[in-house]
Amino acid sequence: MKVTLHRGTFIQELQTVQRAISSKTTIPILTGVKIQLSNQGLTLTGSNADISIETFLSVHDEKANMQIEQTGAIVLQARFFSEIVRRLPEETFTLEVIENNQVLITSGKASFTVNGLDADNYPHLPVVETNQQLTIPVEIVNQLINETVFAVSQHESRPILTGVHMTLKNNQLVAVATDSHRLSQRTIPLESQSDQINIVIPGKSLTELSRSLGENEEQLEMSIMENQVLFETETMKFYSRLLEGTYPDTNRLIPTSFNTEIEFSVPALLAAIERASLLSHEGRNNIVKLSISDEDVVLYGNSPEVGKVEESLNYEKVSGDPLEISFNPDYMKAALRAFGDTTIAIKFISAIRPFTLEPTEGEANFIQLITPVRTN
Amino acid sequence: MKVTLHRGTFIQELQTVQRAISSKTTIPILTGVKIQLSNQGLTLTGSNADISIETFLSVHDEKANMQIEQTGAIVLQARFFSEIVRRLPEETFTLEVIENNQVLITSGKASFTVNGLDADNYPHLPVVETNQQLTIPVEIVNQLINETVFAVSQHESRPILTGVHMTLKNNQLVAVATDSHRLSQRTIPLESQSDQINIVIPGKSLTELSRSLGENEEQLEMSIMENQVLFETETMKFYSRLLEGTYPDTNRLIPTSFNTEIEFSVPALLAAIERASLLSHEGRNNIVKLSISDEDVVLYGNSPEVGKVEESLNYEKVSGDPLEISFNPDYMKAALRAFGDTTIAIKFISAIRPFTLEPTEGEANFIQLITPVRTN
Repeated sequence: MKVTLHRGTFIQELQTVQRAISSKTTIPILTGVKIQLSNQGLTLTGSNADISIETFLSVHDEKANMQIEQTGAIVLQARFFSEIVRRLPEETFTLEVIENNQVLITSGKASFTVNGLDADNYPHLPVVETNQQLTIPVEIVNQLINETVFAVSQHESRPILTGVHMTLKNNQLVAVATDSHRLSQRTIPLESQSDQINIVIPGKSLTELSRSLGENEEQLEMSIMENQVLFETETMKFYSRLLEGTYPDTNRLIPTSFNTEIEFSVPALLAAIERASLLSHEGRNNIVKLSISDEDVVLYGNSPEVGKVEESLNYEKVSGDPLEISFNPDYMKAALRAFGDTTIAIKFISAIRPFTLEPTEGEANFIQLITPVRTN
Repeated sequence: MKVTLHRGTFIQELQTVQRAISSKTTIPILTGVKIQLSNQGLTLTGSNADISIETFLSVHDEKANMQIEQTGAIVLQARFFSEIVRRLPEETFTLEVIENNQVLITSGKASFTVNGLDADNYPHLPVVETNQQLTIPVEIVNQLINETVFAVSQHESRPILTGVHMTLKNNQLVAVATDSHRLSQRTIPLESQSDQINIVIPGKSLTELSRSLGENEEQLEMSIMENQVLFETETMKFYSRLLEGTYPDTNRLIPTSFNTEIEFSVPALLAAIERASLLSHEGRNNIVKLSISDEDVVLYGNSPEVGKVEESLNYEKVSGDPLEISFNPDYMKAALRAFGDTTIAIKFISAIRPFTLEPTEGEANFIQLITPVRTN
């Protein structure tokens, strides 16, 4: 294998596959990046127990300015190799496999010789054999991920809840995540291209997927296999394992009739919650209290050890019964951040029943649920 | 105590004194910031075992827009208080001590009540009674610090070496730091305003001092007391303890005659050293080798476990005997960074004797010393 190419372009590809490479793996070859050179271009692969990423840099890519002298393959320790490439002196560099899996990396007057590993020993990625395929705009995928993934469980006690549940039925793609204290669900109309879909993708995989998607990508091809899912763009393949088991039926959790409704501007409410949570974080119980009365709407925080906070809230509209309800401000903050700069309606049944948050515009395609904290 | 003032201006002052406040202290009141309001303005104080910082915000400062209703003093837990002030909704805020050392913090509709501590229990800062005083431009102080402080020892085995030795004699201010493997010394001509000075200031204090100096400050007044030094600007007093003990005589360490001399552009040499150190960091011995021969000047790194690097170096000028010398690249990197974008001369006696680095222009006012590593 011998190739000369543009260093900056190569570093970008390497960065993408490095998202899948951990230095803490127990399988030594997986700390490496697999580099494969064909006459068509350069393929990089990184992999861990959860995800695998493969990128392809075409010989026709002008930025890459690739001169292929001899095809071949090698595996190089990824972190170390990437540090070397980053620090090379010239705009281009040459990568050459010499004897005994040793690799010569040269640029200007600098010349590194590093030990590589035989690429034949690198694990094979799954082969896609499925008719379950979807095409989704990248923008929509990023939105789905950002609106749901924060609500997955961080605990392995119920592994299925560490994933986002995705279903496709009647031309509706539904993504839902819950850690049993709060829930976030986004529905997107999608012209049916596939059979019914029902999978649970690890939240961490989706976070990495979102980070790996370039700004220039427009469409994502999603292929579902036995226990894997593949997201594919023109230049990248992103594989994730799927979570096994049955996701709980979340539909029955979402209430449909309410006794109190109030509308807020999200940034204003978020700022007030952030202030109140400063105090609740210092105390033993991380809770704040919202009081809706005929006179006003007030947010309270109280931690006897450090002090208390109270703030009369600006709101857009309020209706229904007076209410005092306590909740974890961190769940509220995460929920509000997912809405962005918009107006939402919060709907309550009572102080002990979960309440919902929805944009005031958008026809219930995005709904969040938070369970209150009982204080007596 | 009751005052209303501009939030952003107050936050800046608070940030400065927070440099001296640790949340890990065993003296609870020192986790707090002391706030003192007189008719002249607001004084903030923060302190730990090593340094104390006091800032003063004048009632005449227009940015501060200060309205004093009642003078007084209080101590508030610094980290928590600063988070609250940062998140308040309006441009200004009001601070009022109510009963039992409780403090009311209000801004717009938000209102915090937090528990404070009696300011009378806050330790007193040292009183300055000295005739050992110097006035130094802030720019010079920052330069002195940046050029020496990196070379202090990080180990408490010889505490005196964790400080920078500053002496004033014959109108020459000399700052020197060494960890016994390398040394950095800067000399600055300074019109004698004081008796002979001979103190050792903790490196950490100097780093914090440098960070605390605003861009608008021009002069720094330095007062030396029994076991403290005070650096004073118009709006800030910065106290540091001094290290006790006798600093070793470093003058005799600096050689004056050499057998090999070579000149480099600092950025070019630094980039090459950084590349070579990538490899040395992976191996067991963190060393690189410089070879100066009649043909060329080459830098080598070799770590049998991972690989090797070699790079023919560009240099400005070379003279004297051929030489092969090994050294820790991290010492060289730190030394080169302190020089900045200039040209330096490196002068050697032999492979086992310390070598010096000096700017090619500047008449020996700045000199560094690195001890090589014996490889056989």
